[in-house]
Amino acid sequence: MVIIDLIDNIQNTGETGTNKKNNALTGESCVLVIFGATGNLAERKLFPAIYNLYRDKLLPERFAVVGLGRRVNCREEFQKEVCESVSKFSRKVNMQICHNMLQFFYYQRLDLNNPGDFVRLETLLSRLDFTHGIYGNRIFFLAVAPDCFIPIVEQLRSCMITKNNNNSKLRLIVEKPFGRDLHTARNLNDTITKVFNTNDVYRIDHFLGKEMLQNIMIIRFANSLFEPLWNNKYIDNVQISVSDTAGIGTRGKYYEDAGALRDMVQNHLLQLLTLITMEPPVSLEVGDIKNEKIKILQLLQNKSINFCSENIVRGQYGKGIINGENVAMYRCEAHIAPDSATETFIAMKLSINNFRWAGVPFYLRTGKRLPRRSAEIVIEFKSLPGVLFFEKYDLLLPNILVIKIQPQEGVFLQFNAKKLATKGEVVPVQMDYCQNCAYPEDSPEAYERLLHDIICGETALFTGWDEIEHAWSFTDKIAAVWKTQEVLFPNYAAGTWGPLQAQELLQRDGRKWWMI
Amino acid sequence: MVIIDLIDNIQNTGETGTNKKNNALTGESCVLVIFGATGNLAERKLFPAIYNLYRDKLLPERFAVVGLGRRVNCREEFQKEVCESVSKFSRKVNMQICHNMLQFFYYQRLDLNNPGDFVRLETLLSRLDFTHGIYGNRIFFLAVAPDCFIPIVEQLRSCMITKNNNNSKLRLIVEKPFGRDLHTARNLNDTITKVFNTNDVYRIDHFLGKEMLQNIMIIRFANSLFEPLWNNKYIDNVQISVSDTAGIGTRGKYYEDAGALRDMVQNHLLQLLTLITMEPPVSLEVGDIKNEKIKILQLLQNKSINFCSENIVRGQYGKGIINGENVAMYRCEAHIAPDSATETFIAMKLSINNFRWAGVPFYLRTGKRLPRRSAEIVIEFKSLPGVLFFEKYDLLLPNILVIKIQPQEGVFLQFNAKKLATKGEVVPVQMDYCQNCAYPEDSPEAYERLLHDIICGETALFTGWDEIEHAWSFTDKIAAVWKTQEVLFPNYAAGTWGPLQAQELLQRDGRKWWMI
Repeated sequence: MVIIDLIDNIQNTGETGTNKKNNALTGESCVLVIFGATGNLAERKLFPAIYNLYRDKLLPERFAVVGLGRRVNCREEFQKEVCESVSKFSRKVNMQICHNMLQFFYYQRLDLNNPGDFVRLETLLSRLDFTHGIYGNRIFFLAVAPDCFIPIVEQLRSCMITKNNNNSKLRLIVEKPFGRDLHTARNLNDTITKVFNTNDVYRIDHFLGKEMLQNIMIIRFANSLFEPLWNNKYIDNVQISVSDTAGIGTRGKYYEDAGALRDMVQNHLLQLLTLITMEPPVSLEVGDIKNEKIKILQLLQNKSINFCSENIVRGQYGKGIINGENVAMYRCEAHIAPDSATETFIAMKLSINNFRWAGVPFYLRTGKRLPRRSAEIVIEFKSLPGVLFFEKYDLLLPNILVIKIQPQEGVFLQFNAKKLATKGEVVPVQMDYCQNCAYPEDSPEAYERLLHDIICGETALFTGWDEIEHAWSFTDKIAAVWKTQEVLFPNYAAGTWGPLQAQELLQRDGRKWWMI
Repeated sequence: MVIIDLIDNIQNTGETGTNKKNNALTGESCVLVIFGATGNLAERKLFPAIYNLYRDKLLPERFAVVGLGRRVNCREEFQKEVCESVSKFSRKVNMQICHNMLQFFYYQRLDLNNPGDFVRLETLLSRLDFTHGIYGNRIFFLAVAPDCFIPIVEQLRSCMITKNNNNSKLRLIVEKPFGRDLHTARNLNDTITKVFNTNDVYRIDHFLGKEMLQNIMIIRFANSLFEPLWNNKYIDNVQISVSDTAGIGTRGKYYEDAGALRDMVQNHLLQLLTLITMEPPVSLEVGDIKNEKIKILQLLQNKSINFCSENIVRGQYGKGIINGENVAMYRCEAHIAPDSATETFIAMKLSINNFRWAGVPFYLRTGKRLPRRSAEIVIEFKSLPGVLFFEKYDLLLPNILVIKIQPQEGVFLQFNAKKLATKGEVVPVQMDYCQNCAYPEDSPEAYERLLHDIICGETALFTGWDEIEHAWSFTDKIAAVWKTQEVLFPNYAAGTWGPLQAQELLQRDGRKWWMI
């Protein structure tokens, strides 16, 4: 059953008509078609992002949103949900502005298996082309389960929704995961690129939209304090931690098949690693940056047979306590097999064997039900030779630079100084640049930046196909080895920092995870 | 006329008896004999310092203070002044503790020209030896006008006050200035070393007692973030500024003869310069550190004939406005000649021609009646080559490290980061380690540290005779050139940053004074 909400107020573009701020968009137009508009991602991230872009006058003059889903019945109900989402999840809420925005929010019920629904979608979009002056510029956002990606793309093609008229712009946004391994990713990519130009496919890794990830290159390449030290002569090791207190929530079905390796390492953690380690690109152009990132991913490929057992620790949480509350073990969560072998934690030691990084270990870890929610990169510098103060005091701490990604965004520096009012005792002291502390609401959410970039046709913050291929190739090898090995899960209690072996991974090198 | 206050409560050492904290002093004893005990330095610095050491139980178990002066008549009056000084100038005041302290404060009126007064001083000190168990350990503090130094030392000798019995410790503390040029400094040193062992002479440069000066070596030599960058490959220039809003106050008589060159450059500024630029010493032993400082002073000596006119700017303040109030010109201050040619401001560009520093200019400035009171060292790092962000943005600021000495004590770092919520705009951001912000009262005054070191026989924070010689030799040459040149004073208004030429000194190099 399909309902098309017919269009009111079509001539009245209201607030959006005042959108003059972003020159890049003046005269542009587009419709954003959201598959999965009644789902979790739309509610928590997309609607608040669209609202904030609208409020900041960063949307095109001629713009519309078409929500597609199954749960909601009509446009009014959808609009109500959009407002609820904004009031609940947006960083700055003004309900009047939100209500004004709703005039260009449309909705259609859509069943993926019903080609007629796609025909009706085309009718709606053509009508919006006419009434809103959209000129066929369409952005399709696949905010649905991964197994729906290929069916949707094929229906879009067969229903001529992606037929290009008069140089209109057709773009596709694919949420992660892009495939579940190299094979399925290639299949997906082949299907997509039959319908969309490669350059018009935006593979989202929402970490890339975060303020501090965009800051990593600036910190590295625009500061003479850091650039000369960014190599194996001065850096002892790098630690990348992305931890979550949450369990898997309602995502059991997806997570049970993915695990931490596919859900976090293949995308977010490898992106962080490449940004921290890549050589300076020839220019700041997207292609030049991606070239350098690819080189790092290539250097991760050649691993010995023993690599996994020696350098990777996987874990699955048992019951435990988070924030003072008892939480269930992973195997008791919804949609999870009672003997599940899916990892909810992974820690690994990687090496990058080039002139810059040979000898420097990179420790990565991520997990669910850990003691705190945070994402940060710790750069531990080598200690100075054992002379002077390093001779006098055995326990001087190394210099440490922390790039904090969430929840705090900023840079933290630990260095040694004289302890106040002593005769020369040396202690570690801290300084801190917090980007979002003073005005936390000013820090845009990743999806605001990402949506805006897609509308503007900017691809820098999206994962290139080459990167995806190399990343899967790396994680596939690990997954293949794991398949042949027994695991004793659960092996860590919820609310702890993963299995003991994750600590030992560093201890055997004489190091420890920094908790800054 | 001499009055000796005879001693009460001699057996009752009270609070000092509980002094167990500092093991180095256990069993030690001494009397601190202050010449100039009714003067400005004693009131503002020495009594508060002694009080804080007493409160913190850092004084020897057997300890006494003998104040010598002309203005005050009797012990009670003196004790009253000590308490007033503590309540007015001390960082933590508890009057009960202060009153307890007074029991070991003695006073004697003393006329320098009256040898009998010195005989009576010897009587008093001998008595204290007996009653307080001092065992002849005597520290003489010359907190008087420089022209009194030699007469006092000679009287101490001729009255046998410095005769060493039974290995007692005799120490001399000389306030700056140590001479007014190389010739007078040598005279003074010769006189002193006939009476005191060289190692028992403590030449005070109170800047060396400041927390952040003691921190400079730690920042440089205990941090792998800074040590590799501390040279002409990475540092563009160094700026050392010590500025004062005050005029010359009641010090006109001294200042008119000294000027900024002798009052500030010869001691404080050159000490800061040597700490920032010296090579790593062989060890943290005093002698090894002084050796390295001397090398820097040696490198300052060989200057061409044109050095002064090209690299040094002198100034004298005219009338102007400080903190909203009109203030008089220097030539109208008390004890100042109406056509005075004394400089109240000096700015200079120095070079240190060794492998580490060749090509790096060091800009020093100091002055009276400047817009703010502060002392800080600015390290400006070279910008990175003009690629990537330095190609994209013309106006990227360099990285800057500031060592703040007063009034704030700490370290400040300016680096480049992404401007929040922009698409990659690069802006300078700051981080700050403030050592005395949280608990300003915890930061000891320079004189506390210095007095404690003298009592313990530690010489690290005092100026060595070699350093004094080289420093005078450097400033004498400048003074000699100035003597031959006319000046047009006043050449800057009170409340401004000195004469325009001080700005031009940097502008002609394409640089500017940083105001952080």
